[in-house]
Amino acid sequence: MSRVRVAMVQTNSVVGDLEGNVERIRRVLDEVADCDLAVFPEMTVAGYPLEDLVLKPGFVADCRTAVEAVAEASGRCALIVGFADSAPEGGDTTGVQNAVAVCQEGRVAGVYHKRVLPNYDVFDEARHFVPGREPLQLFEIAGVRVGIVVCEDLWVADGPVDRLVAGGAELLVAINGSPFHRGKLDEREAVVAATATSSGLPVVYVNLVGGQDELVFDGGSMVADTAGRIIARAPRFDEAVVIVDVDVDPVPSSATDLVTVPVSDPVTRSDHAVPPPLAQLDPSAELYEALVTATRDYVVKSGFTDICLGLSGGIDSALVAAIAADALGPERVHAMLMPSRYSSDHSISDAEDLVANLGLDGRTIPIEEVHFALRNLLTPSMGDDPPGSTDENLQARIRGVLLMAHANAFGWLVLTTGNKSESAVGYSTLYGDTAGAFAVIKDVYKLTVYELARWRNDQAGGPVIPSHTISKPPSAELRPDQRDDQSLPSYEVLDPLLEAYIEGDRTRADLVADGFDGDMVDRIVRLVDLAEYKRRQTPPGTRVSRKGFGRDRRLPIVNRYWG
Amino acid sequence: MSRVRVAMVQTNSVVGDLEGNVERIRRVLDEVADCDLAVFPEMTVAGYPLEDLVLKPGFVADCRTAVEAVAEASGRCALIVGFADSAPEGGDTTGVQNAVAVCQEGRVAGVYHKRVLPNYDVFDEARHFVPGREPLQLFEIAGVRVGIVVCEDLWVADGPVDRLVAGGAELLVAINGSPFHRGKLDEREAVVAATATSSGLPVVYVNLVGGQDELVFDGGSMVADTAGRIIARAPRFDEAVVIVDVDVDPVPSSATDLVTVPVSDPVTRSDHAVPPPLAQLDPSAELYEALVTATRDYVVKSGFTDICLGLSGGIDSALVAAIAADALGPERVHAMLMPSRYSSDHSISDAEDLVANLGLDGRTIPIEEVHFALRNLLTPSMGDDPPGSTDENLQARIRGVLLMAHANAFGWLVLTTGNKSESAVGYSTLYGDTAGAFAVIKDVYKLTVYELARWRNDQAGGPVIPSHTISKPPSAELRPDQRDDQSLPSYEVLDPLLEAYIEGDRTRADLVADGFDGDMVDRIVRLVDLAEYKRRQTPPGTRVSRKGFGRDRRLPIVNRYWG
Repeated sequence: MSRVRVAMVQTNSVVGDLEGNVERIRRVLDEVADCDLAVFPEMTVAGYPLEDLVLKPGFVADCRTAVEAVAEASGRCALIVGFADSAPEGGDTTGVQNAVAVCQEGRVAGVYHKRVLPNYDVFDEARHFVPGREPLQLFEIAGVRVGIVVCEDLWVADGPVDRLVAGGAELLVAINGSPFHRGKLDEREAVVAATATSSGLPVVYVNLVGGQDELVFDGGSMVADTAGRIIARAPRFDEAVVIVDVDVDPVPSSATDLVTVPVSDPVTRSDHAVPPPLAQLDPSAELYEALVTATRDYVVKSGFTDICLGLSGGIDSALVAAIAADALGPERVHAMLMPSRYSSDHSISDAEDLVANLGLDGRTIPIEEVHFALRNLLTPSMGDDPPGSTDENLQARIRGVLLMAHANAFGWLVLTTGNKSESAVGYSTLYGDTAGAFAVIKDVYKLTVYELARWRNDQAGGPVIPSHTISKPPSAELRPDQRDDQSLPSYEVLDPLLEAYIEGDRTRADLVADGFDGDMVDRIVRLVDLAEYKRRQTPPGTRVSRKGFGRDRRLPIVNRYWG
Repeated sequence: MSRVRVAMVQTNSVVGDLEGNVERIRRVLDEVADCDLAVFPEMTVAGYPLEDLVLKPGFVADCRTAVEAVAEASGRCALIVGFADSAPEGGDTTGVQNAVAVCQEGRVAGVYHKRVLPNYDVFDEARHFVPGREPLQLFEIAGVRVGIVVCEDLWVADGPVDRLVAGGAELLVAINGSPFHRGKLDEREAVVAATATSSGLPVVYVNLVGGQDELVFDGGSMVADTAGRIIARAPRFDEAVVIVDVDVDPVPSSATDLVTVPVSDPVTRSDHAVPPPLAQLDPSAELYEALVTATRDYVVKSGFTDICLGLSGGIDSALVAAIAADALGPERVHAMLMPSRYSSDHSISDAEDLVANLGLDGRTIPIEEVHFALRNLLTPSMGDDPPGSTDENLQARIRGVLLMAHANAFGWLVLTTGNKSESAVGYSTLYGDTAGAFAVIKDVYKLTVYELARWRNDQAGGPVIPSHTISKPPSAELRPDQRDDQSLPSYEVLDPLLEAYIEGDRTRADLVADGFDGDMVDRIVRLVDLAEYKRRQTPPGTRVSRKGFGRDRRLPIVNRYWG
């Protein structure tokens, strides 16, 4: 039996930050110097996903330069890093490839190009990359033949894994940029374990960490032994280096029919690296951490330090304020209370309690005077009583203008506080409560907002969200005695219907067959479809479900198919 | 020599409107009854592009039902219509296919599935469809063996055309959903002519017409004879039925090694259908028509009749007002003049002249009073003189709020008036002048805005855009004596740089090598990258260039690659 010392290096690479990403790799070189191989995530030096950045030939050339800088810094420990590569000149493909370099002792010992390109959900890899087609190779690292794949390669039956195994691989390494959604870790573990079991080889799975626009990568890198047991785990949502000795059963070299690239010889060690045990996160903790990480990274990677948001006294803005305070520190969260004539006393006091509990910078600006001035201005066109929701939207938009004025004046980002249930049915005011840079809970249904609020209140330090905020009936407070359930079914009824329609791609007829009430289906499905135009203009926000309202749900705005 | 009578039927199919699209087909059946075949555009019954609608299995089933309704209505004339199909059960592919049905005498005589799926620019067909893989067939219509392909099939060297030709086709039919951009028609004609020349077969090319979200389809269907001459053209941007007799050189049936599906026998005719000659559009006329068509279709297909917009007295809003008036009729265009303390007298009078020239519904609402009230409200936070562009944005946002209030109250759509140069560098106020449903000229650079304004003024009826609007230096008028050229290079310098950076995918280093001034490149490229967050929240608008700020330019917001 051989034993290789593997470092799983979960980096928070930043898209396009080639210098910074190389520096992130250099920073851990001392720590991994005693390892045989250090495995980094997909697109380590470039960041992921790059989207149309890869269409710039100059960018791809710069990526290659960055990988050469990594190679120059490498020593005995083989660094397995991801990058964007150009397909080799004179080959039968042109274009960009999703690549892995094996860097060791100052050189690039070899390169593998991802063969299976996901082009569904949030992924557009068939747009951006051409698949690797060169003959498969193995890399002999510390005397062990290592087969390397990238992310999707591992997930499909006709990918390169079987061929690497049949060709004599002794250890499989997968580098990944696998975005979080609820339940995703279990899916990944199942795939990694099944691959280990069916191949009889240990599998090292390293994932990216951090937020990038609408995606959040949760890390959770792992090693499975030959029996499919997960023997090492890296933390979730944090950068980490986890070192683990992996036992490898030798495969006779006579079984190898793939070209094997020699990288490094084995060394003898007297110690044994055993990774620390790691507690799993429960589903609420995992989701909350995802939102905190994504919010922090969006703000910080955009070059900002502070955010502001409107506090209504309701549960959505309360939860977002807590997430922002946990992400950035409460002193960087500027909470604006902007009561109108319809705001209830309890709303104001609930919001004030939240500001005090979290230690935010709270500011109160009543909007009555401006509301009055605007109504005056509109009187010649529409009289004293504007039709429909005009006056409700007016109040929401005044608040949006005030938040944006503060953001402009002080260099803050505005966070919006709408949830997925609202976004689905268009229960929001465009340029009003949807105005802002990042929509923290846009992919969280209302019932889950309650779940997270309760979970946050149960954490050390005691409750922060006022109990009245959680217990009172939801209301937009844009007209007297307004309540959400006057316009919408209860969230207990609405959320499952929305999930079936949105995540499930069910039609109206399907939903009625599923047992949902026909009239309600008609009404809600129509609201969801009609609100597509609003969603196109709302800010990005973290995807935490199987299908968010972002790159994974691309519907036409002009669309006469009802259902 | 055989002669077949072909109808090119350019329909304006609406996405998802299965019943309506079938009705559009039925409406022309009398007109084409005497033809041998009537060729409709790609996805005739479904609309195009469907985007993620095709991920709903129920929708695809409904498409099949719609095609069967078309077949039921068919007579001797073979109807060649596009639809979304499911890959045949039990086959080796699962998924949805971009399909063509040959409908004749009440039945679906045969189906072809698109084999080459574009997955670049605005196209995501690898996401939505699986390619056709069944053996190629020919359809014997009126005694002529017809090879059928769909759009991209015609454009690639390794597509199905060569095989159809080698297999004995006598006539090629291509159905298309080919969106307009400037110069596209010439590219299409070159491909059609080259296909006809190299195959020695006539080619019938039918394209969709009408606006769909950010795309506008320009029709311009055509027939090339065996020498590659374009012998018939359909109009641009309008629905049309153009009937033309096409001479076909017989290919011996011994040369046929493809399965040939019998459809209809030849008939003898005494008359000869010659299509009317059609004038070509000059580049300005073509572009103007594209914008008119797209605007009308976005408004009408969304179920609206009227629009409103803000008129500043500047050239962008003047051009958009003219386009809207031509698209919808001037009485449906509600033009709001919203002067602030910084508006010049000439701006107001220029806007008033435009209202009079076009015959719009003009309304004037000075924003001074509300501006004052808002400034008052902000004083506790930021004193009497808010920093940076806060006060400029405030004015733009007040105008956005007023436009949206009118839209809400009267059921109008708001059109925004920003051009591509502004959108590129972020010279706009989010939730202010970017607030609206449709951004008519978002893909038109400022210099082209001038070109179009002059062109419109040269049309019958005389000038409508005041000459002073065209001649004065551009200004946002958000502070005293402001002019665009205080913040930006002149548009003569800026626009070519933007085009090289955006359409050309050049990096900063490339642009300097191209001869642009280094400091200017640094500044402008940085502005373009930083404004990505704004563009994500701006409304859709017509794509008229090779690369618009929409589905054809997918860049990350968080992106540290400068250039």
